[in-house]
Amino acid sequence: MGSIFGRVFRISTWGESHGGAVGVVVDGCPPGIEISEAEIQCELDRRRPGQSKITSQRRETDAIQILSGVFEGKTLGTPISMMVWNQDARSQDYSEIQNVYRPSHADYTYDVKYGFRDFRGGGRSSARETIGRVAAGAIAAKFLKLRCNMEIVAYVKQIYNLVGEVDPKKVRKAQVEKNIVRCPDQETAAKMIELIDHTRKAGDSVGGVIECVVRNVPPGLGEPVFDRLEADLAKAMLSLPATKGFEIGSGFSGVTMTGSEHNDSFYSAKGRIRTKTNRSGGVQGGISNGEDLFFRVAFKPTATILRPQKTVTPDRKSAILKPKGRHDPCVLPRAVPIVEAMAALVLVDHYLLQGMMRSDSE
Amino acid sequence: MGSIFGRVFRISTWGESHGGAVGVVVDGCPPGIEISEAEIQCELDRRRPGQSKITSQRRETDAIQILSGVFEGKTLGTPISMMVWNQDARSQDYSEIQNVYRPSHADYTYDVKYGFRDFRGGGRSSARETIGRVAAGAIAAKFLKLRCNMEIVAYVKQIYNLVGEVDPKKVRKAQVEKNIVRCPDQETAAKMIELIDHTRKAGDSVGGVIECVVRNVPPGLGEPVFDRLEADLAKAMLSLPATKGFEIGSGFSGVTMTGSEHNDSFYSAKGRIRTKTNRSGGVQGGISNGEDLFFRVAFKPTATILRPQKTVTPDRKSAILKPKGRHDPCVLPRAVPIVEAMAALVLVDHYLLQGMMRSDSE
Amino acid sequence: MGSIFGRVFRISTWGESHGGAVGVVVDGCPPGIEISEAEIQCELDRRRPGQSKITSQRRETDAIQILSGVFEGKTLGTPISMMVWNQDARSQDYSEIQNVYRPSHADYTYDVKYGFRDFRGGGRSSARETIGRVAAGAIAAKFLKLRCNMEIVAYVKQIYNLVGEVDPKKVRKAQVEKNIVRCPDQETAAKMIELIDHTRKAGDSVGGVIECVVRNVPPGLGEPVFDRLEADLAKAMLSLPATKGFEIGSGFSGVTMTGSEHNDSFYSAKGRIRTKTNRSGGVQGGISNGEDLFFRVAFKPTATILRPQKTVTPDRKSAILKPKGRHDPCVLPRAVPIVEAMAALVLVDHYLLQGMMRSDSE
Amino acid sequence: MGSIFGRVFRISTWGESHGGAVGVVVDGCPPGIEISEAEIQCELDRRRPGQSKITSQRRETDAIQILSGVFEGKTLGTPISMMVWNQDARSQDYSEIQNVYRPSHADYTYDVKYGFRDFRGGGRSSARETIGRVAAGAIAAKFLKLRCNMEIVAYVKQIYNLVGEVDPKKVRKAQVEKNIVRCPDQETAAKMIELIDHTRKAGDSVGGVIECVVRNVPPGLGEPVFDRLEADLAKAMLSLPATKGFEIGSGFSGVTMTGSEHNDSFYSAKGRIRTKTNRSGGVQGGISNGEDLFFRVAFKPTATILRPQKTVTPDRKSAILKPKGRHDPCVLPRAVPIVEAMAALVLVDHYLLQGMMRSDSE
Repeated sequence: MGSIFGRVFRISTWGESHGGAVGVVVDGCPPGIEISEAEIQCELDRRRPGQSKITSQRRETDAIQILSGVFEGKTLGTPISMMVWNQDARSQDYSEIQNVYRPSHADYTYDVKYGFRDFRGGGRSSARETIGRVAAGAIAAKFLKLRCNMEIVAYVKQIYNLVGEVDPKKVRKAQVEKNIVRCPDQETAAKMIELIDHTRKAGDSVGGVIECVVRNVPPGLGEPVFDRLEADLAKAMLSLPATKGFEIGSGFSGVTMTGSEHNDSFYSAKGRIRTKTNRSGGVQGGISNGEDLFFRVAFKPTATILRPQKTVTPDRKSAILKPKGRHDPCVLPRAVPIVEAMAALVLVDHYLLQGMMRSDSE
Repeated sequence: MGSIFGRVFRISTWGESHGGAVGVVVDGCPPGIEISEAEIQCELDRRRPGQSKITSQRRETDAIQILSGVFEGKTLGTPISMMVWNQDARSQDYSEIQNVYRPSHADYTYDVKYGFRDFRGGGRSSARETIGRVAAGAIAAKFLKLRCNMEIVAYVKQIYNLVGEVDPKKVRKAQVEKNIVRCPDQETAAKMIELIDHTRKAGDSVGGVIECVVRNVPPGLGEPVFDRLEADLAKAMLSLPATKGFEIGSGFSGVTMTGSEHNDSFYSAKGRIRTKTNRSGGVQGGISNGEDLFFRVAFKPTATILRPQKTVTPDRKSAILKPKGRHDPCVLPRAVPIVEAMAALVLVDHYLLQGMMRSDSE
Repeated sequence: MGSIFGRVFRISTWGESHGGAVGVVVDGCPPGIEISEAEIQCELDRRRPGQSKITSQRRETDAIQILSGVFEGKTLGTPISMMVWNQDARSQDYSEIQNVYRPSHADYTYDVKYGFRDFRGGGRSSARETIGRVAAGAIAAKFLKLRCNMEIVAYVKQIYNLVGEVDPKKVRKAQVEKNIVRCPDQETAAKMIELIDHTRKAGDSVGGVIECVVRNVPPGLGEPVFDRLEADLAKAMLSLPATKGFEIGSGFSGVTMTGSEHNDSFYSAKGRIRTKTNRSGGVQGGISNGEDLFFRVAFKPTATILRPQKTVTPDRKSAILKPKGRHDPCVLPRAVPIVEAMAALVLVDHYLLQGMMRSDSE
Repeated sequence: MGSIFGRVFRISTWGESHGGAVGVVVDGCPPGIEISEAEIQCELDRRRPGQSKITSQRRETDAIQILSGVFEGKTLGTPISMMVWNQDARSQDYSEIQNVYRPSHADYTYDVKYGFRDFRGGGRSSARETIGRVAAGAIAAKFLKLRCNMEIVAYVKQIYNLVGEVDPKKVRKAQVEKNIVRCPDQETAAKMIELIDHTRKAGDSVGGVIECVVRNVPPGLGEPVFDRLEADLAKAMLSLPATKGFEIGSGFSGVTMTGSEHNDSFYSAKGRIRTKTNRSGGVQGGISNGEDLFFRVAFKPTATILRPQKTVTPDRKSAILKPKGRHDPCVLPRAVPIVEAMAALVLVDHYLLQGMMRSDSE
């Protein structure tokens, strides 16, 4: 188990990297939302391999099909099933790794957990699984856009030791999409691309940090004490392959401030209660306060590298791994739409829950 | 909603800071586990206010009562209800804050979400709610100790800019409990205590980082793709009051390594597959690999400070907050057992889920 | 596990018959609902043992205490914890049954499932557990009354072979409460009381059928395909001790009709769509249609009888059971408020879910 | 929402009657179970329309495709996605019913709940949705067969007023499959077939009762107090289209027995504790006792009849419905495998939950 996410807007993803297809079923999407395959495809294209020289060269059109739940262009309120056929699955590339555990991959842990595994391309542990998340997230984001003009913008903040200068208050999606690394600081972006390309040629990999800002979040989202908005965001982000950390607002750097420095003062503007600073990152006591949500996600360097590595076989013998396959020297450019999708999925769930409980819904 | 945690070992906490009592119901604890009120009290005493000069001076014995689910000293497999009466609730201290929103507290967000709030002592948003978590966590930890000798050790790693030197591989609970700040580096601990005491006298507050290591974790725990072990840990930690960040293994610092530096090589020792390094933090692909779990949690400086602060009233007027009340100048010393409790709750849930699915359970 | 009910209005009951107390935590109750202990006590008094000569003579005041979640007379939107102390627990009556399995009771199955059991008064399998359901149901019913004037009326339709004449369209709670057996047909009620009294004196027991009608159910409640309204009602009713059957609308008797006889014709009245007949029982396709909900629940004769019975001991030896204890010769009179409570819990959950998904909630 | 069933073996069905396809995702199936498309097809063929003269003549091969979760003939422990393309969807037959509410169908309630509906063939409310249940149930049944030789046999007990003579202790699947109505009493079966055929020609429909017996149920399954085995069975059965009632063991007829007649005496045989009678239907206190599970499900006459019916239009005007379409004059023959599938899904979930909690699982 573990492939269902959400409480009321629930998604169920399925599919192995080199199986027949991958997909998702969305249960709990409200009815009457206009949605088209084209809108969803847009997001999938941002996630797609082969989109640039710094991503994996696996060739997949990742063409989405909606099989249910949408009628005459609108959601029915019934489950929405969406799928993508796997096309360029070169399983022969992986025959070799059937008998060896790739370091920092899930080969060993899947074997120990399930007794055996689909070794082709990482099977279920492949990031190919995130197609379903992105497709479902596109619907969630559309709903939130329609209902409250919510806008979710993620971008690459850091690759290895290169840190972009980005003002989260002003950054726009168009700036993010201007370059293939998806860092809105165009100058640093160029350096990042060069670094990734260089790394790729060296058969190595790099990680980095994705930042995400969400605007027009209605105050009141989040369900204390356990289902706090930031708790669910943390879970959503750490459920993504290759993530190692999450922080919201001031995050880890907030620990070197005193309370008098860190507290966000309230003030009133145009009848709305606002905070002067936003070290809280848009949540207080687990509930959105109407300020921008702001959080960061750490991604480790891709585990797949094209260098020989020492490892063991399933029967516990020493071995040298010489990977072939295609891979991403850096997952972050493709992870940007995935982070946005997960944020949308968390937020739509909380939006619906809060709508349900509003005391003024009489 | 939002006060139930877990899938199969499910806890339901309840209680406001200044209501009649606080407590928890545990549904799904396996039968036959020996447990006593004394064992649970032990953990609650580590969380209790008034335990030292650097914690809140609210006087509560926090004496736990088990009301159901335990018979002749053993769990029945039925719900375990536990509670603690609130004793030293000086609600008069809070009458003033009924009409003012404390910065970086949940007063405003609770009001906007629920329409009104129990303003006394923060009501439900008070950390007093974590009593139920610690009580339930004590049972979870006992179960894990009995089943696989699992050992969970959390400690204060950093307060403000003071960072303790701690070897996570060797640190023991006894070292953590040697001083009131719960940092096993005794020398730095002394400085931390001094800093917190100084901060308290200055009417200010500080935050910090708690590290947690878990030993003897069986390989195979974690339910990809959403309910990865680290994802559930992240959610559990971010569900705690005052937390702003979570990282596992190399975390945010791993982003400045290349893949060839970061990958954990496998080797075989005594028939067991091990990794030479543990940058993964004990999880790969969302599943424990048998190495120590290792994660860190960032806590912001306490929002309650004893200095005047600018803020607004519920009717959107400017105001100056002059808090009285008692408070913790730093929540970390008391948060150590809470972090351990949440880790135990996540792990027991995954332990039970994995036991259920084992293909060799025939 | 298994002691949590509901998806968004979730209740968690706890307590053994002869433990310290029994109670419930309600998570997900909307904020701002006026509720008092007195209102809840009203329903508990209808469930209480010792209320008449035809119920168990165990003496319990069953005085409810609200420990959290209610502030200044209104629900906070936080968990509501309620409890009742056990008072008249004569455990000595049960010492004998520690070593013998009572026929058609849960002694054997609890032993086989959990490895041991609290044998005193049936422990967790006692109907005393339903106190938590009734208390939570009282809040649910209050909410539904306030929101849509929903009215839930259950009554005893049949005891053994005595069947009351009741018009479900017209029956009122006051008629039900006019006699101790809770059958609104006063003449048959008298015979039922006599029969139960006679049965009690003979050391035997009887069962029967409770009918329940729910008025002012908004159309649109129910979540196909699995969480149909009638499916959740069926589960709720079969989760009650001693129940053996559930039917809605025409139920089992509908099988001897043809489709042309059974179908409920639609017509329009005052701008509302209505059905001429109500063989559907108020649901079509798993969703309420605005007509009265109407269902029936079969209760077996109480398993506890005061006659010697052949049985076995835990070590598989033959034995004769001579029960002492106090018992209900017929559970139905006390089960009436319990059926109502479960109906309210199902309906409040669906009401909230539907409110969340309404496409016009903008 | 509402299209996910189960707690640990969770299925998520999707698809409208005349959409592109219908299917299911199974999350939580244990790894290592041998399963083939052929085995699943077997069960789907029993559910398929057009299989005999007494079922709907819609022509569908209902050929199942497994898209994920199975590798080299065995379950991976990852989500199993299965689907069937819709082929013979004559949507033109339904254009007429777009503007009229069919009596005792879900047209009106779907409209009122979701704001609009896929009117073609009943959309999501069509029994075509049960394809996913049957496919998932086939895997569940295989697992239970392998683990504990569990055997689930459902059959038609009654059609209209024709009641078959069947001994639930002895009935075998082969006898059930000997005729197209699936009643193992061959003589009555012939009459039932004649009756259904006659009813079909008269443009009318009939209902009936399906009985189900489950053998080799391990004692200990069921999670009191809410998730009792019979409660979950009741929900599962009432979640099926056209069902109006559920009873287990003595059911509604048990109400005319006294406790001394109804109680099931225990005895010991071959070291196992057994009951002499089985009025409990295999469950006591919500937990299986090792005797055969035995329950009955009432199905109303099919709502679709080929006779003019009075009804209303969505804009509340009177109308006469003259259905064309194809339909089943009686759903029971095709519902037999569906009842078995739902029973398997409930039982596998409880089997896994109980395995998890066993105190001897160390």
